[in-house]
Amino acid sequence: MFENNISFDLTCPLPIANYDSVQMAHGGGGRLTHQLIEQMFFKQFKNDILEQAHDGAFLTMTSKNIAFTTDSFVINPIFFPGGNIGELAVNGTINDLVCCGAKPLYISIAFIIEEGFPMEELWQVVQSIKHAVDSAGVKIVTGDTKVVEKGKGDKIYINTTGIGEVYPDISISPQNAKPGDVIIINGNIADHGIAIMSNREGLAFETVIKSDTAALNHMMDGVFEKCKKIHVLRDPTRGGLASTLNEIALSSRVGITLFEDQLPVKEEVRGACEILGFDPLYVANEGKILIILPEEEALSVLESLRLHKFGKDSAIIGRITNTDPGLVKLKTIIGTTRMVDMISGEQLPRIC
Amino acid sequence: MFENNISFDLTCPLPIANYDSVQMAHGGGGRLTHQLIEQMFFKQFKNDILEQAHDGAFLTMTSKNIAFTTDSFVINPIFFPGGNIGELAVNGTINDLVCCGAKPLYISIAFIIEEGFPMEELWQVVQSIKHAVDSAGVKIVTGDTKVVEKGKGDKIYINTTGIGEVYPDISISPQNAKPGDVIIINGNIADHGIAIMSNREGLAFETVIKSDTAALNHMMDGVFEKCKKIHVLRDPTRGGLASTLNEIALSSRVGITLFEDQLPVKEEVRGACEILGFDPLYVANEGKILIILPEEEALSVLESLRLHKFGKDSAIIGRITNTDPGLVKLKTIIGTTRMVDMISGEQLPRIC
Repeated sequence: MFENNISFDLTCPLPIANYDSVQMAHGGGGRLTHQLIEQMFFKQFKNDILEQAHDGAFLTMTSKNIAFTTDSFVINPIFFPGGNIGELAVNGTINDLVCCGAKPLYISIAFIIEEGFPMEELWQVVQSIKHAVDSAGVKIVTGDTKVVEKGKGDKIYINTTGIGEVYPDISISPQNAKPGDVIIINGNIADHGIAIMSNREGLAFETVIKSDTAALNHMMDGVFEKCKKIHVLRDPTRGGLASTLNEIALSSRVGITLFEDQLPVKEEVRGACEILGFDPLYVANEGKILIILPEEEALSVLESLRLHKFGKDSAIIGRITNTDPGLVKLKTIIGTTRMVDMISGEQLPRIC
Repeated sequence: MFENNISFDLTCPLPIANYDSVQMAHGGGGRLTHQLIEQMFFKQFKNDILEQAHDGAFLTMTSKNIAFTTDSFVINPIFFPGGNIGELAVNGTINDLVCCGAKPLYISIAFIIEEGFPMEELWQVVQSIKHAVDSAGVKIVTGDTKVVEKGKGDKIYINTTGIGEVYPDISISPQNAKPGDVIIINGNIADHGIAIMSNREGLAFETVIKSDTAALNHMMDGVFEKCKKIHVLRDPTRGGLASTLNEIALSSRVGITLFEDQLPVKEEVRGACEILGFDPLYVANEGKILIILPEEEALSVLESLRLHKFGKDSAIIGRITNTDPGLVKLKTIIGTTRMVDMISGEQLPRIC
């Protein structure tokens, strides 16, 4: 296992005491399923809404404008430098809600567990989930547990689906990028993908490269308060910065120019990319957000971002143009310009 | 494949034309992922909200009281008499919302597909999903696609998460069953589980036993309109009628008496249960709902249920008592009484 910043509860829940690994019957809907849910999941995730123990959760919203998003997480390995599949699943869905200009509030969690998965590892994942939802200030309000036979899954897959309330007076869409807008990112790119790949390949660097998995809602609270004129928000996960910007260029029918000399990439990540043969532009991030907004708003937003630990390396990395709609170009350090295409085939499977 | 009631679109979407099975790159977040989403998923599921093509969906609710529920479906086999995993996943989540006393409105859909899964089968599942959401009058508004290596999944797993608006003036909870209440079910039990098990075991009966998978929201619309005094609603899926009633008996701290002579079970299902060694009380249903309500409301609710095709065999099957709280008893046909315990171990794995 990897070093963890959270302190784990060492009291041993009943499912671990009775079974050292997950059995098919833990997903059968009977006594063992109930034991697992009560003693492990409810024990950690408990809140007034979850305790209704219903077929679903009753939520009382304060706004009628809500955002709704889903993601399944199939990352391999499930424990990696900087995190594990549990917190990744929570943070990923929180960030998708943030990218809708919403305040994340409620999350559902659904496990597909492979028979034989060690209870201790499940317990560790569950505690990381709890830590992630507590840090982000969201509640797990409903869930589901399924177990599949050994060889029909891979340890654990997690779906999280989230609900948030959309901030008033904000209108965000991938179609909204306008020529003249600038593109801000809140820090270094490619950390997550390279953390996973160097771990898979057994590469050891002087400093361990950690995933950037993080929930960005608290950082963005400040931004939403300061600036109502954000045009586009996206988190460059699978496919990396390049794929996300290509999507935006197509949706908004605009050109995009990236400035290579402004792109924040950690030295060790750049080195690992060279060794592994990856372009950092195509490598997944899990704690980054792209903010596209009018230039005159950029400085105040940068200032707000840099106050937060997840935004201290924020930078303006590009600009929306009215030339070559649908295309993304990179202005290189040596002054040339090259096309940045959408990733075509498989680059990094099961990166999230 | 099994006989289907819906007519399939025979035009061949691009992913099938180019690839006869799902590749790892279809889940990589790049060009192939986009092709699959655009040409297959969006093409079928399209609606104004989904077309926002955002990290999530923007929803404008008309009520601030919403229900929220999630389920992952890992059923094996994915095609079975009476349906397939696609419509099952839609109907299951719709029914969970109905059991919260809510009107189902929006659904998210997340696929975990095993590498090598035939495109034609995916296309058939997708069309069944479309048919199911259209029949039920709900919208798929956001989704996710992941692909895992061959041997790390089993064809396809589907998570659906749903949002509904809670009917006003209705208060439903598993804690609400009251002594004197009666228990109504909307038809025959054990069809789904026996359809799956006889299919797995290769059993052939004179008539094919079909899953009862169905979305019950339209049937229940009439009930909610007629009766505001329903105390408990639950769908007896995994673990069957027995497990669900045990949960209710525990939550509401009441006794439950079931009348064996009132339990609707199809003759061929009863026969198959005997051959396979199952008790129909413990076999999963996917189109049934338990309605617990004051006796004086029962006849009018029965009348309303019986008007609908999914409720024509509705019956009163039991009663809530104030003796032996937490226990479920069966009054048998021969006049004896036996305990109906919660299912303990694995009975029917991957039944939904």
